[in-house]
Amino acid sequence: MTFAFETIGTLHSCFEQKFGIPRQPGLVPDARAVLVLKPPFSRAENLQGLEGYSHLWLIYVFHAVAARPAKSSVRPPRLGGNRRVGVFASRSYFRPNPIGLSVCELERIEIDEGHGVLHLRGVDILDQTPVLDIKPYLPYADCVPQAQAGWAANSPALRCGVHFSEAADAVLESLPSRERQDLRRLIRQVLSLDPRPAYLHRNDHRRCFGMRLASWDVRWEVRADDVEVKILIPVREGRTQADIKPGRR
Amino acid sequence: MTFAFETIGTLHSCFEQKFGIPRQPGLVPDARAVLVLKPPFSRAENLQGLEGYSHLWLIYVFHAVAARPAKSSVRPPRLGGNRRVGVFASRSYFRPNPIGLSVCELERIEIDEGHGVLHLRGVDILDQTPVLDIKPYLPYADCVPQAQAGWAANSPALRCGVHFSEAADAVLESLPSRERQDLRRLIRQVLSLDPRPAYLHRNDHRRCFGMRLASWDVRWEVRADDVEVKILIPVREGRTQADIKPGRR
Repeated sequence: MTFAFETIGTLHSCFEQKFGIPRQPGLVPDARAVLVLKPPFSRAENLQGLEGYSHLWLIYVFHAVAARPAKSSVRPPRLGGNRRVGVFASRSYFRPNPIGLSVCELERIEIDEGHGVLHLRGVDILDQTPVLDIKPYLPYADCVPQAQAGWAANSPALRCGVHFSEAADAVLESLPSRERQDLRRLIRQVLSLDPRPAYLHRNDHRRCFGMRLASWDVRWEVRADDVEVKILIPVREGRTQADIKPGRR
Repeated sequence: MTFAFETIGTLHSCFEQKFGIPRQPGLVPDARAVLVLKPPFSRAENLQGLEGYSHLWLIYVFHAVAARPAKSSVRPPRLGGNRRVGVFASRSYFRPNPIGLSVCELERIEIDEGHGVLHLRGVDILDQTPVLDIKPYLPYADCVPQAQAGWAANSPALRCGVHFSEAADAVLESLPSRERQDLRRLIRQVLSLDPRPAYLHRNDHRRCFGMRLASWDVRWEVRADDVEVKILIPVREGRTQADIKPGRR
């Protein structure tokens, strides 16, 4: 049996490519996104009372996953990319129905001429993601602190530190104070999670990586226990994602 | 933009009609359900590793909601059924996309000839619900104890007590010990949440209600501060739900 759903809006997120997206929500508190609802779902009446909630669920489509037969099992990065687990025992986006679920912090609701836009934080969602539903987060029902989660019980380990090269620092220093702080914090949080594919973790120190993040081309080098941001380049209008080659370079 | 999803299985739940279903998951810990996956999603490989999780998310379709234009706002029972809130500030099943989301306790996984069935507890989901996805519950990401939830911050209040009439007690006593305990506990948990529609709460004491629950026709009377289960009748095979008139009688 098949069910069809219409998107209620599109998420505009700081994660402009898949590489670098944290693997769960909340891990990068400063990861911001804007959910632009479309009419008639954008009407202010639809959102009335939502301002009383600090967090909400987004149910959305993993739209950038290539259509292909779903696999029975996946290799979670948390298990080093070697061991397989069943697709329903993972949050991988390679799943029978490419439906995503994330709890996000609701920073504020903007109403413009009767239509609403949601400003969110702590997202782990790709830019341009089509959204199917918003639900308020109810701690008494949704928060299960005693839940056991096997090998995924705790947050992923953080790298020791994220440093900035002199060149990268100079770029940051040239920014207005607020923007500088936000960008520095965002880069620190994203890179401290070590977004490299699991199979590179052990034997690939001193390699250079790059990602596009919040309209910046960020390039960094992985060292034994820390990360150095080498280069920061603003992504110019009109420059396409193809120009900023994702991932390893 | 529209996206279509295929169901991965069907949930068989103790809630055989909408009336009486708790309004969030976890409120009735003894509410049991069995998720029967369909091939190829039922293959044991799909579930490998899920046994390490105590809880999981179900994403499903509110299939028994009549198709009709979605409203902008709803009247949540928690607000007495009078005040309206935006549909995205509620968990109501009258929503633009009839997608449901519940965390359930995973009691056990049954594998029979290579195909899996999930035994669940704490559900708030109607019998025969089509399921779209299963995701493991990750407490470090999904549990947000500090989340603020306005008027829905706490669990709904419980009624003082649920009693059984002599007639109902006699029926329970005739059951095997395990079944007796389970049914008594389930009825207590469901009725202590007072499933009556909000508009009846204040002025409708001493009215009789009925619901079909776990293949029992349960009839009870509401008094000032408690509830008495008057009659318990097993639902015979072949008897349809239409014979057991739902709700108020």
